[in-house]
Amino acid sequence: MTSQLYVFDLYGTLVDYNSLRPQVYLLTPNASSLVDLWRLKQLQYSFMSSMMGRYVDFDELTAHALDYAAAQYGVQLDAESRERLIDAWSQLPPYPDVRPALEKLRALGAKLAVLSNGTPPALARTVAAAGLDEYFDALLSVDSVKAYKPRPEVYHLAVERFGLSRGEIGFVSSNGWDAAGAAEFGFDVTWCNRNRLPAETFGARPARTIATLAELPAD
Amino acid sequence: MTSQLYVFDLYGTLVDYNSLRPQVYLLTPNASSLVDLWRLKQLQYSFMSSMMGRYVDFDELTAHALDYAAAQYGVQLDAESRERLIDAWSQLPPYPDVRPALEKLRALGAKLAVLSNGTPPALARTVAAAGLDEYFDALLSVDSVKAYKPRPEVYHLAVERFGLSRGEIGFVSSNGWDAAGAAEFGFDVTWCNRNRLPAETFGARPARTIATLAELPAD
Repeated sequence: MTSQLYVFDLYGTLVDYNSLRPQVYLLTPNASSLVDLWRLKQLQYSFMSSMMGRYVDFDELTAHALDYAAAQYGVQLDAESRERLIDAWSQLPPYPDVRPALEKLRALGAKLAVLSNGTPPALARTVAAAGLDEYFDALLSVDSVKAYKPRPEVYHLAVERFGLSRGEIGFVSSNGWDAAGAAEFGFDVTWCNRNRLPAETFGARPARTIATLAELPAD
Repeated sequence: MTSQLYVFDLYGTLVDYNSLRPQVYLLTPNASSLVDLWRLKQLQYSFMSSMMGRYVDFDELTAHALDYAAAQYGVQLDAESRERLIDAWSQLPPYPDVRPALEKLRALGAKLAVLSNGTPPALARTVAAAGLDEYFDALLSVDSVKAYKPRPEVYHLAVERFGLSRGEIGFVSSNGWDAAGAAEFGFDVTWCNRNRLPAETFGARPARTIATLAELPAD
């Protein structure tokens, strides 16, 4: 089924945070583990933030998570290295399958949007740096509702912006917990399982699973 | 400062889920990694559950998390092994520092309680199997508010049960995110850093950090 609107997650779905590894490798041989932990804590802090009812924006959570990961691996970060690493989140490269997939969906007449935990300035910078800004009709940030995915009010932003019903909205994420949250909300969800992980066993099931975005639009 | 009430987290603070490893080792050489992932997913699912607004009890989340971790490590679980592993969460041994610490606090006249994500039957069974039931004035389960830590209404259960103000309640957890959530709520928090992890860099800071419960009561 081709949806009239596809809403994409950003980090891990359109742009690749594993590309941070070479920069981190200059600081420690544990670069892969540090980046994995950085991402894990970034998400854990976003969950904690929503649950505690203390909203702090994603740029700040990213910085806090970096400090934790650096401490875990005994990396002393000077202010400049720290700033550069945090800033690198706004310059993540797109996965190679992204541009062709967006081209194809546009050619089919679909509208496209991003729905991300990132702040509005971070979304704008990241999408522009990745050379993807021409494709999107909207960049939707959780910042306007001060809560993080998978809170339902976040997914509701797309409903509100485009005036479509939940089931008419195609949602694409590589993050299993995000796909589960979006499916729970009622979107027509495609889980792009880039990392060949097991399917989440809690939450609503995505309507379909694909290995890369080249499979879009998927039945 | 000696509090008149100490509220303890259960899993990882009083009882040790690392003791699950030998049983898992019979199924896979990746037992340590599988147990780590099992715990990680158990907590992630508890966060997702609260954020999605779909409460599912902790026994069920534990089962879902085991299924995920088993899939990740290619372990085929028959129904009996699966049941036995899930059931093992109700028979986790106490850490060696637990009983002496509870004895000491009782001798000082403090009341003691458990506040846990576990279901009421699981709490009762676990505390009894660990031989700790004589020490506690209350076993408080999140199940009565249908939300998970670090949601404030969970911590509020102790306020409600004992009629003390937040700052009068000593809260002890080895889980950094739980210590942060409880500190955010306003408890007088002791983080027992059993695993020598970095301090959490998001959320309110615990009032103090100790290495083992032998340091209780701590200034």
